[in-house]
Amino acid sequence: MVDREHKPKSFRESQPGFRWDEVDLLAYKEEGAAPFKSITRQILFQRPELGCELRYFEIDAGGYSTLERHEHVHAVMILRGSGRCLVGEDLRAVRERDLVFIPPLTWHQFRATNDEPLGFLCMVNAERDKPQLPTAVDLHELQKSPAVAAFLGGSDE
Amino acid sequence: MVDREHKPKSFRESQPGFRWDEVDLLAYKEEGAAPFKSITRQILFQRPELGCELRYFEIDAGGYSTLERHEHVHAVMILRGSGRCLVGEDLRAVRERDLVFIPPLTWHQFRATNDEPLGFLCMVNAERDKPQLPTAVDLHELQKSPAVAAFLGGSDE
Repeated sequence: MVDREHKPKSFRESQPGFRWDEVDLLAYKEEGAAPFKSITRQILFQRPELGCELRYFEIDAGGYSTLERHEHVHAVMILRGSGRCLVGEDLRAVRERDLVFIPPLTWHQFRATNDEPLGFLCMVNAERDKPQLPTAVDLHELQKSPAVAAFLGGSDE
Repeated sequence: MVDREHKPKSFRESQPGFRWDEVDLLAYKEEGAAPFKSITRQILFQRPELGCELRYFEIDAGGYSTLERHEHVHAVMILRGSGRCLVGEDLRAVRERDLVFIPPLTWHQFRATNDEPLGFLCMVNAERDKPQLPTAVDLHELQKSPAVAAFLGGSDE
């Protein structure tokens, strides 16, 4: 790892199953840190010369990312499969190559559909604040929308 | 444009032909500024909150990007088709989802194959220096490698 950090390979080939040479398959977060299901993380670019990192997240069928918000923004491109995404009060179906921007302090969650994985690139500032989890009051507020309530409950409607 | 700058849409759908809602198809560079052929640019994410921009470049069959170098680095993922890429003295065939890192002050050029386009994402710092073009001496140095000379000459071998 140390060598790679100091002299990165210029070329890393893609491998079957949305894997890459020299890129480790990582846990999404520490287990128990926050609610999530069936999601992995791969760091594609993380270099001291760059103001951002590029990561690839993949959510298995039926899985979801943590419902959270933070000061830093996300710039996302869907790379594989399809799913749904909540950004603030806006709920959308997403599919390959769609672009999603998560503004500052905006609740967001990605969910794969029940029949295929959802994989996406996420560009994010290298220096960033920690995510915030919703309080019971925040959740109550979000769930006032029946569509959002159903989404957060995992309903595929 | 002004409204979009201040309140970006969270969702922008992908369209056929590697286009996106609300994303303009731009010239690669100003015509005559540097040698290049058959290449377009689309800016996918360019936000004041982000330290980097994410662009999509597409080179038509037989086309190529400018041979250049600069202090800033490029973090590239091939998104469409196949081609070849020169990074320093390293010449490689690239295809969908391969990763390419261009280190500081390293000569680089992308070329599509003669039968399909080459499209790639390129993450770059928002603040960056201007590209440098090779002098005759630089070109002579690069062309000492027969493989690189053939590549720069457009040979598809």
